[in-house]
Amino acid sequence: MATEINWDGRFARRASLMKRSAVREILKVASRPEIISFAGGLPAAHLFPMRRVKAALMTVINRVGPEVLQYSRTEGITELRDWLAQHFSTRRFQVNRENVLITTGGQQALDLLGRILLDEGDKVVVENPTYLALLSAWRPTGAKFLPISGDASGMRVEELEPLLKQKPKAIYCVPNFQNPRGTTLTLSRRRRLLESARRYSVIVVEDDPYGELRYGEKALPGLLQLDARNRGPEDLDSRVIHVGTFSKVLMPGLRIGWVIAPRAVIDKLTQAKQAADLHTSTLDQHLAFELVTTGFLDEFLPVLQLHYAARRDAMLGALEKYFPKDATWTKPDGGMFVMVTLPNINAGELLPKALKAGVAYVPGEEFHMDGQGKNTMRLNFTNAPPNRIEAGIKALAGVLPCG
Amino acid sequence: MATEINWDGRFARRASLMKRSAVREILKVASRPEIISFAGGLPAAHLFPMRRVKAALMTVINRVGPEVLQYSRTEGITELRDWLAQHFSTRRFQVNRENVLITTGGQQALDLLGRILLDEGDKVVVENPTYLALLSAWRPTGAKFLPISGDASGMRVEELEPLLKQKPKAIYCVPNFQNPRGTTLTLSRRRRLLESARRYSVIVVEDDPYGELRYGEKALPGLLQLDARNRGPEDLDSRVIHVGTFSKVLMPGLRIGWVIAPRAVIDKLTQAKQAADLHTSTLDQHLAFELVTTGFLDEFLPVLQLHYAARRDAMLGALEKYFPKDATWTKPDGGMFVMVTLPNINAGELLPKALKAGVAYVPGEEFHMDGQGKNTMRLNFTNAPPNRIEAGIKALAGVLPCG
Repeated sequence: MATEINWDGRFARRASLMKRSAVREILKVASRPEIISFAGGLPAAHLFPMRRVKAALMTVINRVGPEVLQYSRTEGITELRDWLAQHFSTRRFQVNRENVLITTGGQQALDLLGRILLDEGDKVVVENPTYLALLSAWRPTGAKFLPISGDASGMRVEELEPLLKQKPKAIYCVPNFQNPRGTTLTLSRRRRLLESARRYSVIVVEDDPYGELRYGEKALPGLLQLDARNRGPEDLDSRVIHVGTFSKVLMPGLRIGWVIAPRAVIDKLTQAKQAADLHTSTLDQHLAFELVTTGFLDEFLPVLQLHYAARRDAMLGALEKYFPKDATWTKPDGGMFVMVTLPNINAGELLPKALKAGVAYVPGEEFHMDGQGKNTMRLNFTNAPPNRIEAGIKALAGVLPCG
Repeated sequence: MATEINWDGRFARRASLMKRSAVREILKVASRPEIISFAGGLPAAHLFPMRRVKAALMTVINRVGPEVLQYSRTEGITELRDWLAQHFSTRRFQVNRENVLITTGGQQALDLLGRILLDEGDKVVVENPTYLALLSAWRPTGAKFLPISGDASGMRVEELEPLLKQKPKAIYCVPNFQNPRGTTLTLSRRRRLLESARRYSVIVVEDDPYGELRYGEKALPGLLQLDARNRGPEDLDSRVIHVGTFSKVLMPGLRIGWVIAPRAVIDKLTQAKQAADLHTSTLDQHLAFELVTTGFLDEFLPVLQLHYAARRDAMLGALEKYFPKDATWTKPDGGMFVMVTLPNINAGELLPKALKAGVAYVPGEEFHMDGQGKNTMRLNFTNAPPNRIEAGIKALAGVLPCG
């Protein structure tokens, strides 16, 4: 009955803009136990307090009953939306339930934003290098990325002006401990970014997965905090659309993210989400709510911060000790990543040798939208203990031609 | 700092094709406890065996450990993909792990298929009326729906020919206990549909959420079963892309669906899913796997079938007893819905009166893509016990002008 179909000829034009993420392909190799992997962006699962999770699950099932496994609202469960609304409210402005959408991880928030905001040919200003899966999510809309470079103080906001003259629809920004560089946008640049966005009437998408993974300095106010005010009792006025996630501070397997934005944006995103997956897992939402309202973050975050800070220190120390003098790297105050710049070495070509020596990383070129960064590598420091990090950096230094 | 933005002017053209689902809006009203709701498509949550679920969660957490909350593969966890591959294999053909993608509910499967298959202007043959959220998912691609009507034996496959001459990209078909009509495509029509699809080289999307909710007759072979064969040891050859879900047979709150298809399709869908939400909840996938591999379906499905059959009988009996002689309705052998055709009464205009009388339903017009069906209503029979169903149909008959 059947015939072989040439499927490649059947896919939509848009589908040709989709690519398998090279990072996820590297991760498959890197997950072999003999490899010391700096490739992923994985939290340290052995720190997850499983006894707490079990107890929370039992509590939730007893309290909510069978509805914990039933269909639920597209917008998210009311309890969790209210908790987030309160969490993001400040003395200056109030976030309401209607300003909150729960998404299936932060990734879905970015995907839905691309779908409701971007038409073919629209322009978006994006720091170069940037979060790879943002590019994957927004590329199929046919949008064009306008790259802007960064330095130790984050996106070079001084260079925004000529890009904004090209009338982009949005600026995408990861202000805290950016992926892949680990850098943080300074307060003065945050203010300047918002001033420019206002002058040119551009939307700002603030993606903040790492903000709570802070190992030193006090937190800087976020872009939403700096921009938002209340329009009336029931709505926010802000050109900032804030995206967040529990993936880095609770557990990523739950896939719970969110958007904080004016009502009109949340309404349109809700329509898009209805069509995308009806709603986010009811069970996972209730579990996350139970954890955050019973002090889980207060207990667990300091533990994470302590461990991750030690791992970052181990990585920076080992780089100092083993890497050649003409290599440089970022010094993140938080997050999960260090980016190394090598002297005239192609990090992509080096990868097979590194894997053979038992170490994995992601070539920095992957995060660039213009083929730059060939001599850079992204190193994750959250998923291995300090001694393994030191051993991995030593092994990696051993395969550098100039090592 | 902020300024009010006119958000409506900022959304993408595609976003104007998105609409808030009227059904979900009706559901908000219908969820008030005093209302007897025939509006949703909700399973009966009080039947969920919560003790089993609790035990399964503990087993899974003990067995898998912290990885149960860690990031996992976009394609889905290996165990569950293997289980589904085996479940869908027959004596005639073998489904392999590489032919399976786990999705965030069946809805995401439909959404991703729209994204990889449909370009603006592409045509899709769809039974009229059909599953509302399929239209919501595929409309923003700019695809055009070619409606084909149905009768008691499902889609009128005899009328396909002229539509296929318009070179549609795909036929979307819910062969078993279709939503909203509850009708089932006969075996001869299944064969004929596949023959026509083959002759015109059209893809068939088989959406089968209700197939296991069968209250009488033996199951008919599905479209995938009728069409597929093996291309080689590692791949399927089929023009049928099969979509399924655990939402109706386990619990919808878990959001676990899947696609069974040739490798090339699964590969492209995986790329789309990476960008859409990285992966489906790891915890929920493991819970579903634990339930299905420990005999849960063998125990639970007969219970569901027994209860739902009694509820269907209660609804059909009450319609016979209370509804006017010139009304007609479908007589489903499974699934969740009955569709009533009223003599010259606008079911949408009647709804406020019905709600006042304490009964909710969805006007059938919602499921039509051409404004037809104004005199029809979709009635769900799975979410209320027989006595409430009888009371609800009686109350509904009371507000019919000709009642």
